[in-house]
Amino acid sequence: MATLIAPEDFSAAEDALDIKKACLGLGTDEKVIISILGHRNSFQRKLIRQAYHEIYQEDLIKQLKSELSGHFEEAMCHWTLDPVDRDATLANKALHRTPPDCRVLIEIACIRSPEDLLTVKRAYCSLYNHSLEEDVASRTTGDIRKLLVGMVSCYRFDGEEIDEGVSVSEANILHDEIKEKAYNHEEMIRILSTRSKAQLNATFKRYRYIYGTSIRKGLMCDPTNEYLTALHTVIECIQDPKKHYVKVLRNATNTAQGIDKDALSHVILTRAEKDLKDIKELYLKKNKVSLDDVVARATFGDNKSFLLALLGNEEN
Amino acid sequence: MATLIAPEDFSAAEDALDIKKACLGLGTDEKVIISILGHRNSFQRKLIRQAYHEIYQEDLIKQLKSELSGHFEEAMCHWTLDPVDRDATLANKALHRTPPDCRVLIEIACIRSPEDLLTVKRAYCSLYNHSLEEDVASRTTGDIRKLLVGMVSCYRFDGEEIDEGVSVSEANILHDEIKEKAYNHEEMIRILSTRSKAQLNATFKRYRYIYGTSIRKGLMCDPTNEYLTALHTVIECIQDPKKHYVKVLRNATNTAQGIDKDALSHVILTRAEKDLKDIKELYLKKNKVSLDDVVARATFGDNKSFLLALLGNEEN
Repeated sequence: MATLIAPEDFSAAEDALDIKKACLGLGTDEKVIISILGHRNSFQRKLIRQAYHEIYQEDLIKQLKSELSGHFEEAMCHWTLDPVDRDATLANKALHRTPPDCRVLIEIACIRSPEDLLTVKRAYCSLYNHSLEEDVASRTTGDIRKLLVGMVSCYRFDGEEIDEGVSVSEANILHDEIKEKAYNHEEMIRILSTRSKAQLNATFKRYRYIYGTSIRKGLMCDPTNEYLTALHTVIECIQDPKKHYVKVLRNATNTAQGIDKDALSHVILTRAEKDLKDIKELYLKKNKVSLDDVVARATFGDNKSFLLALLGNEEN
Repeated sequence: MATLIAPEDFSAAEDALDIKKACLGLGTDEKVIISILGHRNSFQRKLIRQAYHEIYQEDLIKQLKSELSGHFEEAMCHWTLDPVDRDATLANKALHRTPPDCRVLIEIACIRSPEDLLTVKRAYCSLYNHSLEEDVASRTTGDIRKLLVGMVSCYRFDGEEIDEGVSVSEANILHDEIKEKAYNHEEMIRILSTRSKAQLNATFKRYRYIYGTSIRKGLMCDPTNEYLTALHTVIECIQDPKKHYVKVLRNATNTAQGIDKDALSHVILTRAEKDLKDIKELYLKKNKVSLDDVVARATFGDNKSFLLALLGNEEN
């Protein structure tokens, strides 16, 4: 379930006027902007952008960029974007990091539905005049490239039908490769990048049944090995996206280098309209502390108010 | 330009009634079926199928399958299918040959637009409960698998914008790999499977400019090497689809094993509504004989009449 609290009745034109009013004058009234955009779903935000453009012949996101600053600006602009454009933007940003942020790319490739991934790839082409595949291929190398290009390229079958024969034979193939530590062997990448999620989950289950251990336990855990870490992420995103996000959130708030604000806000922005309520519950169960409290301690100012609003926390 | 001659005014219901009438009784009146379906574009055929289903609660294609036979049955059924379903069906059939027919898969992956390829992949999933990618991956091996999975997976950028810097650097990469005969090196597959067609054509042009010879001349020609043949086909389909089809047609009618009727009708069926007129002109120029004459000699009976109708030849 979602955490976003959005009214059923709203007027895009009134919202556009109120946002413009909040931007006029010397200071910007961030609270008003949060109270509006922090409580509108993606369709409503789209209508507000359209209304804003019709009334003022200005792009709302450009306006927000010029009025806001820091993490809050980035979060609010990403939020206001159409979710598909947001994913394309996040993927591009992830690719331009050194080294590229594989996690973000894997989340988009493996957690979004095949149809959603497709619309993200289409949006990527029209935003950057390149395909996502070619940018992934030209910005990564070696095994990680093979894995990531496979992941972002494939249009998987999205149905529930599975083939038990395939589960058995491919559980065995995966086990052989894991046993021989041939993680970069093409069979593993072929299976993980082309099979449907339902089929892969059946294969993972069969793996556990035959070999008495999960496939992820079978894989070595070595945080310094980028490829192995990416493999773990792929399997985690296909097996249990919510558990994956809980882990990302915990890591983002528990780093020795301080809070990873990007990771924190990515999860909140991309899941607030989808399953953030379930992720919050799982987070509480796993960490004995509420995500709202962690976010309240880890952030401050307008960014804090905004993220808490998206978390469905109305008390801030 | 297309060769198909279809009337602007038509009635789907009348066509459906006339086809049913042609199917009733002891013999089927194939001429009537050809005179109708051989002169309707894909949208009109779709409406006829719908009308047929509404009136008779029967699928027109099932009806045609039970009434017709041989090559004519297959050609007429493929023609009556929605073009996207036809491509998905042809891809599946190509994959089930031993060895798989790479040419058909490469044509679909490299000649169709990125958006069309996408709709074919969507149709493939819904027809076969598998993705095209996973079937290609599980029915091929080695280098040919890497190449074909790359080709069918990618959603290329479809714009005309190119980067001259990329053309130069990737022409050099391709040349190095060709020089070292490292045709299966991942850089070549990466470039051919992810770059836009406009970018690839700029790279091929730059290759010729720098090295004084075309990339295809640089590649060895060895018809017994399946991978090398597939590479040639990929480059040919990206560079000049019409020239490619002329070659396919010439090979289909010039084999020592007799006429390759599948290849012949594939080209006619898939291009009749697109550019078959240009292909015919190029065929005549290259072979000094008209495609209509060759088809008339190579086929007979209803299949001949049907293919000639699609070729825009009204005299048969």
